[in-house]
Amino acid sequence: MAKFEQWEGFQGKNWVNSVDVRDFIQCNYTPYDGDETFLEGPTEATDKLWGKLQELQKEERAKGGVLDMETEVVSGITAYGPGYIDESMKDLEAVVGLQTDKPLKRAFMPYGGIKMAEKACTTHGYTPSEKLHEIFTKYHKTHNQGVFDIYTDEMKVARHNKIITGLPDTYGRGRIVGDYRRVALYGIDFLLEKKHYDMKRYERHGMKGTDFRLREELADQMKALNEMKEMAASYGFDISVPAKNAKEAAQWLYFGYLAAIKTQNGAAMSVGRVSTFLDIYIERDLKAGVLTEKEAQELIDHMVMKFRMVKFARITSYTELFSGDPVWATLEVGGMGQDGRSMVTKNDYRFLHTLENMGPSPEPNLTVLYSSRLPESFKDYAARISVTTSSIQYENDDVMRPVWGDDYSICCCVSATQTGKEIQFFGARANLAKCLLYAINGGIDEKTKVQVGPAYRPITAEYLDYDEVMEHYDVMMDWLAKLYVDTLNMIHYMHDKYYYEAAEMALIDTDVRRTFATGIAGFSHVVDSLSAIKYAKVKAIRDEDGVVVDFETEGEFPRYGNDDDRADDIAIWLLKTFMHKLNKCHTYRDSEPTTSILTITSNVVYGKATGTLPDGRKLGEPLAPGANPSYGAEKSGLLASLNSVAKLPYELALDGISNTQTISPSALGHDDDERVNNLVHILDGYFDQGAHHLNVNVFGTEKLIDAMEHPEKPEYANFTIRVSGYAVKFIDLTREQQLDVIARTCHKTM
Amino acid sequence: MAKFEQWEGFQGKNWVNSVDVRDFIQCNYTPYDGDETFLEGPTEATDKLWGKLQELQKEERAKGGVLDMETEVVSGITAYGPGYIDESMKDLEAVVGLQTDKPLKRAFMPYGGIKMAEKACTTHGYTPSEKLHEIFTKYHKTHNQGVFDIYTDEMKVARHNKIITGLPDTYGRGRIVGDYRRVALYGIDFLLEKKHYDMKRYERHGMKGTDFRLREELADQMKALNEMKEMAASYGFDISVPAKNAKEAAQWLYFGYLAAIKTQNGAAMSVGRVSTFLDIYIERDLKAGVLTEKEAQELIDHMVMKFRMVKFARITSYTELFSGDPVWATLEVGGMGQDGRSMVTKNDYRFLHTLENMGPSPEPNLTVLYSSRLPESFKDYAARISVTTSSIQYENDDVMRPVWGDDYSICCCVSATQTGKEIQFFGARANLAKCLLYAINGGIDEKTKVQVGPAYRPITAEYLDYDEVMEHYDVMMDWLAKLYVDTLNMIHYMHDKYYYEAAEMALIDTDVRRTFATGIAGFSHVVDSLSAIKYAKVKAIRDEDGVVVDFETEGEFPRYGNDDDRADDIAIWLLKTFMHKLNKCHTYRDSEPTTSILTITSNVVYGKATGTLPDGRKLGEPLAPGANPSYGAEKSGLLASLNSVAKLPYELALDGISNTQTISPSALGHDDDERVNNLVHILDGYFDQGAHHLNVNVFGTEKLIDAMEHPEKPEYANFTIRVSGYAVKFIDLTREQQLDVIARTCHKTM
Repeated sequence: MAKFEQWEGFQGKNWVNSVDVRDFIQCNYTPYDGDETFLEGPTEATDKLWGKLQELQKEERAKGGVLDMETEVVSGITAYGPGYIDESMKDLEAVVGLQTDKPLKRAFMPYGGIKMAEKACTTHGYTPSEKLHEIFTKYHKTHNQGVFDIYTDEMKVARHNKIITGLPDTYGRGRIVGDYRRVALYGIDFLLEKKHYDMKRYERHGMKGTDFRLREELADQMKALNEMKEMAASYGFDISVPAKNAKEAAQWLYFGYLAAIKTQNGAAMSVGRVSTFLDIYIERDLKAGVLTEKEAQELIDHMVMKFRMVKFARITSYTELFSGDPVWATLEVGGMGQDGRSMVTKNDYRFLHTLENMGPSPEPNLTVLYSSRLPESFKDYAARISVTTSSIQYENDDVMRPVWGDDYSICCCVSATQTGKEIQFFGARANLAKCLLYAINGGIDEKTKVQVGPAYRPITAEYLDYDEVMEHYDVMMDWLAKLYVDTLNMIHYMHDKYYYEAAEMALIDTDVRRTFATGIAGFSHVVDSLSAIKYAKVKAIRDEDGVVVDFETEGEFPRYGNDDDRADDIAIWLLKTFMHKLNKCHTYRDSEPTTSILTITSNVVYGKATGTLPDGRKLGEPLAPGANPSYGAEKSGLLASLNSVAKLPYELALDGISNTQTISPSALGHDDDERVNNLVHILDGYFDQGAHHLNVNVFGTEKLIDAMEHPEKPEYANFTIRVSGYAVKFIDLTREQQLDVIARTCHKTM
Repeated sequence: MAKFEQWEGFQGKNWVNSVDVRDFIQCNYTPYDGDETFLEGPTEATDKLWGKLQELQKEERAKGGVLDMETEVVSGITAYGPGYIDESMKDLEAVVGLQTDKPLKRAFMPYGGIKMAEKACTTHGYTPSEKLHEIFTKYHKTHNQGVFDIYTDEMKVARHNKIITGLPDTYGRGRIVGDYRRVALYGIDFLLEKKHYDMKRYERHGMKGTDFRLREELADQMKALNEMKEMAASYGFDISVPAKNAKEAAQWLYFGYLAAIKTQNGAAMSVGRVSTFLDIYIERDLKAGVLTEKEAQELIDHMVMKFRMVKFARITSYTELFSGDPVWATLEVGGMGQDGRSMVTKNDYRFLHTLENMGPSPEPNLTVLYSSRLPESFKDYAARISVTTSSIQYENDDVMRPVWGDDYSICCCVSATQTGKEIQFFGARANLAKCLLYAINGGIDEKTKVQVGPAYRPITAEYLDYDEVMEHYDVMMDWLAKLYVDTLNMIHYMHDKYYYEAAEMALIDTDVRRTFATGIAGFSHVVDSLSAIKYAKVKAIRDEDGVVVDFETEGEFPRYGNDDDRADDIAIWLLKTFMHKLNKCHTYRDSEPTTSILTITSNVVYGKATGTLPDGRKLGEPLAPGANPSYGAEKSGLLASLNSVAKLPYELALDGISNTQTISPSALGHDDDERVNNLVHILDGYFDQGAHHLNVNVFGTEKLIDAMEHPEKPEYANFTIRVSGYAVKFIDLTREQQLDVIARTCHKTM
């Protein structure tokens, strides 16, 4: 049994015997049900550093979105010496550590794909290194090359025609959350010892290839742990031992996260559930009189400042999918414990309070794990932050806790994984709307006219028959689910081979549980289209090749988003059917398949590739994001819309059901107090029905239009909005995406 | 069905429809049962080039064994432009192509292990490149690093204590023979097309990791094929199409082999069975009057000259194991067809004749596939070459043909694999002599006193009881077989991952058969020791720790090598028992386990690590090589010795049973004619009993002693002898190994 002096005053036994941060938290945290009046404003140091950072961000925007880029050094845990926001103010930083040697400078990360790394350079006017080009083309294969070496022609065609889309085959797959708290609680040497033990423990009888892979991964993890110590030492810290106070705990934890973002450039590099954990250290220091509330807030502010600085080098097509430079540094507050206690601590307030101390910001992607049983004052405070900043999202702790326990982290936008015990193999989306058109057209792509799907019999009737369409759709979804999973299996195999997340996995249990996260795009449009075919009369308009390219719908039909079971039942059927088809497939490393209804901002690009649909959406128009009802479909007010989405059973989409809503401030109340009160009522009602997720925006369309026209106005510099899956500075969106956001329903009535 | 003008005049159908060189040979070759009188001497070009090469070899020896080394360029198919023996004589070369840019310059090959590649440089006074060091430590893992990342502690201890030894974990595993003839017969484009087809063909339903590995291997193979075209083009040849004549066929074939030796540095890089194949082209050209016999011989001479030039950079410990710079460029002549026809052609004479035209040479490792049914004149000619050069070995085609068909190649010393259809996962040896001592000492190493094997109950009796020893030995062999196979599984997994033989595998069927070749060391000593325990009285002498370190044997006992069934039955039992234990283990990629009794020159090093044995062999003394009876054990003449070895059933050691014998010229006959005649009789008798292999040396001990004392004498410059598994220039052996060779039984009686 380990015993460290740094643990003085901590209670509990299990977490001492084995790595078990959840047990540590449960034994030591102090629930808080008071209000926010204890919170402190920014310190002078915070103002100075944040001021400097804002200058740099302004400079970055002026330079077209990238301040500086590395071209000569391959990013790695120990690739750089220490770096600071401002060398002359480095003593002000309560939490130190940069991804590269300079603030906002983007690293060169070729392991996912050298082409994409180089293109990111040239796109922004930088010249990539010839030496590194040679290394990553001649000597070291990248993930991207590996995948394209083995793709089948069918996969390439499906990818090219975008029925399967957003595949993580050119960069890091992301979505793995290391349990960075372990660095603080145990120190690296203890973790190394446990991994050494695992290496012995996994000496199985008659070991095979899968055992060898695991052993090599363990060796790489141990290498990464040693490098973390080296990196920390360069900043003057010895993280081989546990953190002895709150400041060290924040710093140790951040070093763990820093190792992750120095080595991986996944589309989601989440921080995880760190708030309650850190509160334990802060409470201990406060009680011991070695820390003031002002200092505690400064610590959290500075830590959050670091999360706001995370950057990756991206290419244009990536930015078109995921606009506004998001990294999904998702960080959770709130939630209930399995024992019924609220897990809200003062620190959860402190994290939300960073949006006041340093203004709104898309990152970290602050997420409230919601339950109507959370302390009223915390619900109020969170709702107030939503009303004033539109920067946070809510997820239903009451539906997630039974599945993932009370120590899960959100690993991307909305997807839960048990912290330190589970990872996700993430893999983009199947476009079910396009699949419906393939079902009608016998596998021929409605845009490119290429035979992409199997050459099944097309539908030839002038008016679409519901049963016939359903029969065709069923077999086409069979094909799609299988091809999609097969494609993802290849991607994850190659990612493990060429771009394994050693630093993150070093902070996760060796006998890790793995889910296989798939995704659905075009959800609401399929539902409404099937409803149109069932309840109205849909005439197919064919072009000269006999391909259906348009529809004429005669009569009314129920639409998803109006609390009408006729449409909503189709939604449930669709989710269930596709999920069950995914379930039939073998998944890489025996992972458990899940799915999400979540498109992020990619709904715009996906829509561009998708033809006209029976629901009235025209070729090229954006799809509705995530599980949102289609634009203009919601005719019955916000609550009816929420009710429809809430009907989708979370157990069929364990990777998440994303819903993004915008409420006009005037609809929500006459003043902020009334708005806060009403928003809490809405959230309680929505989540008590079993809904999973809600992005809450509180502003009117006119503000968006003004911000689009006058981005230079100072009040819009940090104007943050929630889009499907993350938050973004509105002025950082492309005009196309701004128009899409403006086009979305802004509820003016409940 | 393909149709090339280059195939004009060739018969047959199957080989046209699919890649089937064996069928091509069977449909087109011209058996020859005449004598050697048709052979031609060396041309002026041959003399000039060989003269130049001998100068270079002399220079190489003067420089301590290495003429030149690369340090800046990583070896690869297209790493260098064209190179020639002598730029000023390049038009004289009938077959062109060097491993590097200069003759005898050794390439830098880091993929197997950067440490070993660098050590090879520094050992010979060269400074390895810092840039390459960075690449192969920081960016690209090597096979060696991969293996050591995952070895268990038990494996490391067993390796360190040399009970498992000679593991290919620091360089290429070798022993894969590409079907280089395919390049000549089909041209690269046809082969590429077939591999593309395989890539489609292997699109399985629900593909998993093993499918992905295969697909990636195919992608790498296709890359290698394209690079072969590029390399050939640099020499001015277009190998995308089939060879149109004998000269091109030899050249195309050699380019295929060159690709292999530019990318792999395995301990065996065999050429394979090319003689009869090339004869078909030569016969066609001779008939068409476009080639003379003089030119045909020159072509073979020049090709063989190239095989004599193959070199790899090695480290001291490697050279101690395998002395004299061998590469096992093994090349077969002779053999019978499945249809009963002799496969001897004029070309088989031409290959043997190179030993006359250019003098004796260890490489290529010329191997006669023997059958008493071979044409008498060919048997005579081969025996004459043995008598005059001691440079060739014999293997029993009659025992191999039923197992491997009539188109197998010898992939190392003695091991057969079906050409183009099969590969071998090769993996060194288990020291069964040491294992016997472990059985007696309860797993404690007799030399290091470390607990290496499992801590089973040691034998404590003063006099060894046969039944008790056998019981202990049985369980210790169980442990050893399992550990050995587990270790090899790791090695082959990592080799496939970090040092895949893409160039060789590109010339082998995609649905390849794989054997898993293990090996046995110390064979004869175990047999004689068990015989001593059984038939005499063996007293165990223990040191102060109670470890048995010596034996006193009272009375006589039968020894292996005297045609005495009492000893020889133990030999059969030992082979069968260990093979059956190997059979119980899971082997990598579902390969078929085989074993060999074959130690090469490593018997000296293995012996150094092995304690005193009950048969009288003292600590540190060399083990007997291969399946040879122990030194001094053979008391009953050559034929009795051969009879003992011939009893070992080939089906229990499909990887080969190596036997090396030296016969005094005077014992063999009064003149060369009589010696030839007698040798043929010996070979007929030995192989008709089902024996597998024989290395034939014809010289007296006095010649060896003189050569050791006076290596400068011109007649010893190319004095070649057969050692276990290969041929070597005697003066290139270490003094220790020379003394070992001298100590071996030189039969002075039949």
